[in-house]
Amino acid sequence: MEKWIYKIDNLELNNSDNLLNETIFHNANGYLGIRGCFEEGYPKGYETIRGTYINGIYNISEMKQAEQLYGFINEKQTIVNVADTQGIQLLIGDERFHLFEGSIINYSRSLDMKNGYTIREIIWKSPKGKIVQIRIKRMASFVEKNLFTVEYEVKSINFKGLLTWISTHIGKVQNYSNQEDPRVAKGAVKHLEPKKVVTEGDASYIISETTTSGLKVCSAVRNICSDKKNSTVWREKTGIFEKIEIDIQKEETVSLKKYTVLTDSLRETDCLSNAEVIMNRVTRAGLTEMYRLQKIYLDDFWNRAVLEIDGNEELNLAIKYNLFQLLQSVGKDEYCSVAAKGLSGEGYEGHYFWDAEIYIFPFFVLTYPHIARNLLEYRYRILDQAKENAKILGHTKGALYPWRTIAGKECSGYFLSGSAQYHINSDIAYAVIQYYLATKDLDLIVHKGLEILLETARLWVDTGHYYQDQFHIMSVTGPDEYTCMVNDNYFTNVSAKYHLKWAARLYRVLKETGKIDKLIRKIDLTENEILEFEQASEKMYLPYSEELGINPQDTDFLSKPVWDFKKTPKENYPLLLHYHPLYLNRFQVCKQADTVLAYFLYEDMQSREVMRTSFEYYEKITTHDSSLSTCIFSIVASKLGLLEKAVEYMGDSIYLDLHNTHKNTKDGIHTANMGGIYMAIVYGLAGLGIKEDGIYLSPLLPKTWNGYKFKIVYEGYELEIEVNEVCRLTCKEEVNIPVYLYGERYSLNNNLVLEKKNEI
Amino acid sequence: MEKWIYKIDNLELNNSDNLLNETIFHNANGYLGIRGCFEEGYPKGYETIRGTYINGIYNISEMKQAEQLYGFINEKQTIVNVADTQGIQLLIGDERFHLFEGSIINYSRSLDMKNGYTIREIIWKSPKGKIVQIRIKRMASFVEKNLFTVEYEVKSINFKGLLTWISTHIGKVQNYSNQEDPRVAKGAVKHLEPKKVVTEGDASYIISETTTSGLKVCSAVRNICSDKKNSTVWREKTGIFEKIEIDIQKEETVSLKKYTVLTDSLRETDCLSNAEVIMNRVTRAGLTEMYRLQKIYLDDFWNRAVLEIDGNEELNLAIKYNLFQLLQSVGKDEYCSVAAKGLSGEGYEGHYFWDAEIYIFPFFVLTYPHIARNLLEYRYRILDQAKENAKILGHTKGALYPWRTIAGKECSGYFLSGSAQYHINSDIAYAVIQYYLATKDLDLIVHKGLEILLETARLWVDTGHYYQDQFHIMSVTGPDEYTCMVNDNYFTNVSAKYHLKWAARLYRVLKETGKIDKLIRKIDLTENEILEFEQASEKMYLPYSEELGINPQDTDFLSKPVWDFKKTPKENYPLLLHYHPLYLNRFQVCKQADTVLAYFLYEDMQSREVMRTSFEYYEKITTHDSSLSTCIFSIVASKLGLLEKAVEYMGDSIYLDLHNTHKNTKDGIHTANMGGIYMAIVYGLAGLGIKEDGIYLSPLLPKTWNGYKFKIVYEGYELEIEVNEVCRLTCKEEVNIPVYLYGERYSLNNNLVLEKKNEI
Repeated sequence: MEKWIYKIDNLELNNSDNLLNETIFHNANGYLGIRGCFEEGYPKGYETIRGTYINGIYNISEMKQAEQLYGFINEKQTIVNVADTQGIQLLIGDERFHLFEGSIINYSRSLDMKNGYTIREIIWKSPKGKIVQIRIKRMASFVEKNLFTVEYEVKSINFKGLLTWISTHIGKVQNYSNQEDPRVAKGAVKHLEPKKVVTEGDASYIISETTTSGLKVCSAVRNICSDKKNSTVWREKTGIFEKIEIDIQKEETVSLKKYTVLTDSLRETDCLSNAEVIMNRVTRAGLTEMYRLQKIYLDDFWNRAVLEIDGNEELNLAIKYNLFQLLQSVGKDEYCSVAAKGLSGEGYEGHYFWDAEIYIFPFFVLTYPHIARNLLEYRYRILDQAKENAKILGHTKGALYPWRTIAGKECSGYFLSGSAQYHINSDIAYAVIQYYLATKDLDLIVHKGLEILLETARLWVDTGHYYQDQFHIMSVTGPDEYTCMVNDNYFTNVSAKYHLKWAARLYRVLKETGKIDKLIRKIDLTENEILEFEQASEKMYLPYSEELGINPQDTDFLSKPVWDFKKTPKENYPLLLHYHPLYLNRFQVCKQADTVLAYFLYEDMQSREVMRTSFEYYEKITTHDSSLSTCIFSIVASKLGLLEKAVEYMGDSIYLDLHNTHKNTKDGIHTANMGGIYMAIVYGLAGLGIKEDGIYLSPLLPKTWNGYKFKIVYEGYELEIEVNEVCRLTCKEEVNIPVYLYGERYSLNNNLVLEKKNEI
Repeated sequence: MEKWIYKIDNLELNNSDNLLNETIFHNANGYLGIRGCFEEGYPKGYETIRGTYINGIYNISEMKQAEQLYGFINEKQTIVNVADTQGIQLLIGDERFHLFEGSIINYSRSLDMKNGYTIREIIWKSPKGKIVQIRIKRMASFVEKNLFTVEYEVKSINFKGLLTWISTHIGKVQNYSNQEDPRVAKGAVKHLEPKKVVTEGDASYIISETTTSGLKVCSAVRNICSDKKNSTVWREKTGIFEKIEIDIQKEETVSLKKYTVLTDSLRETDCLSNAEVIMNRVTRAGLTEMYRLQKIYLDDFWNRAVLEIDGNEELNLAIKYNLFQLLQSVGKDEYCSVAAKGLSGEGYEGHYFWDAEIYIFPFFVLTYPHIARNLLEYRYRILDQAKENAKILGHTKGALYPWRTIAGKECSGYFLSGSAQYHINSDIAYAVIQYYLATKDLDLIVHKGLEILLETARLWVDTGHYYQDQFHIMSVTGPDEYTCMVNDNYFTNVSAKYHLKWAARLYRVLKETGKIDKLIRKIDLTENEILEFEQASEKMYLPYSEELGINPQDTDFLSKPVWDFKKTPKENYPLLLHYHPLYLNRFQVCKQADTVLAYFLYEDMQSREVMRTSFEYYEKITTHDSSLSTCIFSIVASKLGLLEKAVEYMGDSIYLDLHNTHKNTKDGIHTANMGGIYMAIVYGLAGLGIKEDGIYLSPLLPKTWNGYKFKIVYEGYELEIEVNEVCRLTCKEEVNIPVYLYGERYSLNNNLVLEKKNEI
């Protein structure tokens, strides 16, 4: 096994494998994403989700409510499938290359994570007996974010003659529609209309407009083939076609370089001229240079994003795959975030959820803090819309972030497991605070972060109320969507407690400096509100059962009967696909970590004893029907010193997409799970915590591992943490960082080697 | 003011008045309903809801869910607007009669409730100066349920010459669509397609089919005009037209009799031949005979449905109007029930709700028990679908009636204030039990009623569970829709307690007789289940607050803050139109009677002291945003001896439709409120209760009334109850009925005069 290359060499030409590999081998860079479809297409009857997406580019469609009550959402944003520039037909003489005909002598497909491209290699014998070796390299450039390239090499093995490529640039595309899924309307999938076609030299440009959201996208294509004999360009209704003919000798290799540049009006007013500039720049630089820059970018990435298990190469490759996908998925400017499926498919319509802050942000804040910063800037950008959203929900003050969105408006069609998840506010606040703790970057806090913290904190005060001298939050939904609209959800309350405390604390610290006077005026904040924050935080009611010694998920949770797991047949999981939400709501049964997640994020707010008793309690009633669950159980198991359980919960979720364990990777990768796996090792096994007084570690080492190491960036310093017989912390620079190992304080200057315990 | 005629003589030709009067003067008989539209139509730009409906005849349309979760409903039934046979154009010479031209010398519109028809009378002067007196009498026959007639009389005041009627029979119709209401889709309103047109002699028949539900409707029209000069019949795409010319002398009166017969395939397989038979029968009998039969029917009705206030004729007329509407609205066979809007409009899509059993059934069970029986037979007819519905909601046993339906399938698009209202089960059970108590008709109980009781009782056992030795029902919605999906809703629990007790009791009584052996086998009932019913009933948890001495609406209700009524501007009522349901859910605020309704229906299950304290508590937090609320508060006020409050709560809700106080009578009458007013007097002021051991009465007399009287049928005997200085009970037959007056036992043999208290 190669360390940096994820490779498959079996070729199963069925829908399931085709669709899966379109996701697995998609190319993306955080700005654009292209599914790994075959350039030559599939024969009729085969399914494909032939998608190209730009992060943040959406269309709006009607979302009818079966019954319209006040404030119910009536339109939603959907990520738009933009122009299809993947298409390249190859003709060998008069025979068209196709995997479904002729015979395949050799086949492989790989993702090279050091170089940042995918490769498909085929040795193919045509029906008439011509043998070609084809090598197709695809790249979404991390350096030129608008650029996607296809390098299409053909080598003749046993013939000489004419080769023809037909390279297509299709403007008329639509989103994926599964006829069997009643939720995907036929009419709703056409989101983009080509408006203008421009050809300039050998480059073609299509300017398209979204049908309702008023956005423009320009797609540009340039085909470069040095030895071509003839080239013909023609237009059809659907797009632009270029036929390139070339003579090939036996054993000769020829190649076509296809450059795609995508630009959009969300980021640049004139997306056509922007595309022209970029196209000229990148083609002038050439593909070799682009590959070189890609490698430099990735060298830097892998140098920071170190996470290695000593002695388990399969695991390491899967971890690398996951981290690489996070890099491919994450937005790198303020116009976007990271979608549940990254840029690899249309699942969840390309929406951003709390996953971004709670599952994915932690990886970036520890490795690429500037990307973490972008994620927060995106949230700041939509703060005004969050304030509007709060109004719709009845609030007179504050902001409520949308449960799911692209451009900032709530797109959740079912508020019970959507808008009612008020914890999105404290999740975003948590990310702001984590960012501050890991970077001490006050600049972001002063200009954006604190405003987010304060406006979202206001919402808690407006939502909750005092009853019997405690602060209660009624009628919200916690992370676990099997019980909705509950009172005093432990997770929500504890997260609000933390959020309110930090909002007040950062306010008080910064107020002194005079740096936030402008902000205070802008949002009309009074000192009294800060007192309200502090009081609500202090008086926050946290459900606790004396009898069981656990934190109930909500006030009434324990008075419900426990779900009858014995009587539930295997095929009835995930439960949400087999039971009405009203029925599920009547039981103690959890889709995912809820109280247990609170123990990870807010570990200092509950005793280990209660955490342990609760953990055992929730273990028995959690189905992990969500892919966001087991990683959290793993982390908390680690925190409780339950090493075997921690490893068990990690289980094969590290291979969730590679092995398609949830059977829906065709719709896109599971980015939250990928981030969750990172956390399960770094926050879980290593016990990392970034707190006010320094770095915390409580490393555990699974029996089957020799050791592991990872790197983090803390206050700008790169630290390497290695766990094997000992626990070694290294920093190349001379620093003075407080480190708490298993709770004991040390100081890291340059190198710190400490004893590792086997149990905690 | 005439005692039996509701009349208006002002004519305001605006949309608001036109639409209102279409409802107020609609003709219906429980089978068919025709809105009171002008025969001659309205000019362009005026709005009309030109509707003709058949009770139980529905179409199915798609109901998309914004987010589709398991078990969410995806189609709904809608009452169908069938062929329009109201149309009659009148030409005087070459001038077309129209209220919007010429001048109106005299105008009135009336509903004659003794004779059972509506009359519109106009003296009109045409632009050219011809004066006609027009008298249009419309009747929906109670005796021939398929028959609707229009008698169109014209008298010439000052001219002689040609009169022309054009009588139309339009098959191409559609349901009402308000373009401003986003909930009414344009595409969804066409529910019926004319398929076949037949003319036979001077009668025309149109057979139409619903587009999706597979039902057929036949509409037949016959125009009879004895003195006609000429008659021409022609067809256009939309229907059949008949032009009838007649010569008229000065001061002569001529008339056209238009018979409409409607039949349907739900009730008769061959609806065409059925229509032919009926048309022949009714035209042979003639209109005079039909009027005579109508009067006989209504004489009987008014003889039974006595409810008179001594000394307030305005009130009496309004009461009569309400009772007449109930008779017009109620279904009289097993294929239908009584819709929220009766047969007077398309509001709530013609659905049947719990109103039928809790608000309207009580009037019929006391006056026309055979109609009450029909309502129960309808519920029996859809029992299998209720069992299917229970399965969708996750239950393995029992039946859950749909919250809203026509043919039996759940049509609620938003389960929180729909399917989650499990109390529909105990509401229907309550009606079965009331029917039994008032009639002792064991035949219905043995063959249908008990099966309903048992299957619905099973659902409670499957829904609830034991916790701390009490039986709890979690995650249901009570009648008050401002707090949804709550735990241990007092109303639901107390109603289930009563329901379970009665299901077991009637089972035990009938088991002895051997009459239900077949039923027991059919539904596979075990003795153990009956024990479960009894135990659950006995152990039912009923929320009670020691501190306040009240029954909280649900477990968590009192821990929520009270809604800030002071800060709520008037224009923000009804709250549901101005606040998100999630926001409302967070407060102590009630849309309608909930716990208070339980005190009326289940008065023996709580002490008067707690009822009184609770009543005062809920008074302060109930907005009465539902038209089902104040009548219940009035009843309970009476029960608590709060006479002034009782009168105050009745207020002007007796005029709700006549005065259009809710501003939406255009969409149809409020049948539940009409039944509620009846109850407010009979069950409230008179304190009537039909219980196991006899009749209960605790009459109160409002200061402004001299007295009141009403009649009820009890065990087949007609009793008259009169309240003035004394309380007098009369039965024409010799009986022996136990009567409890203010709790004291008496025996009614033939005549019983008892002292009336002024306070209780």
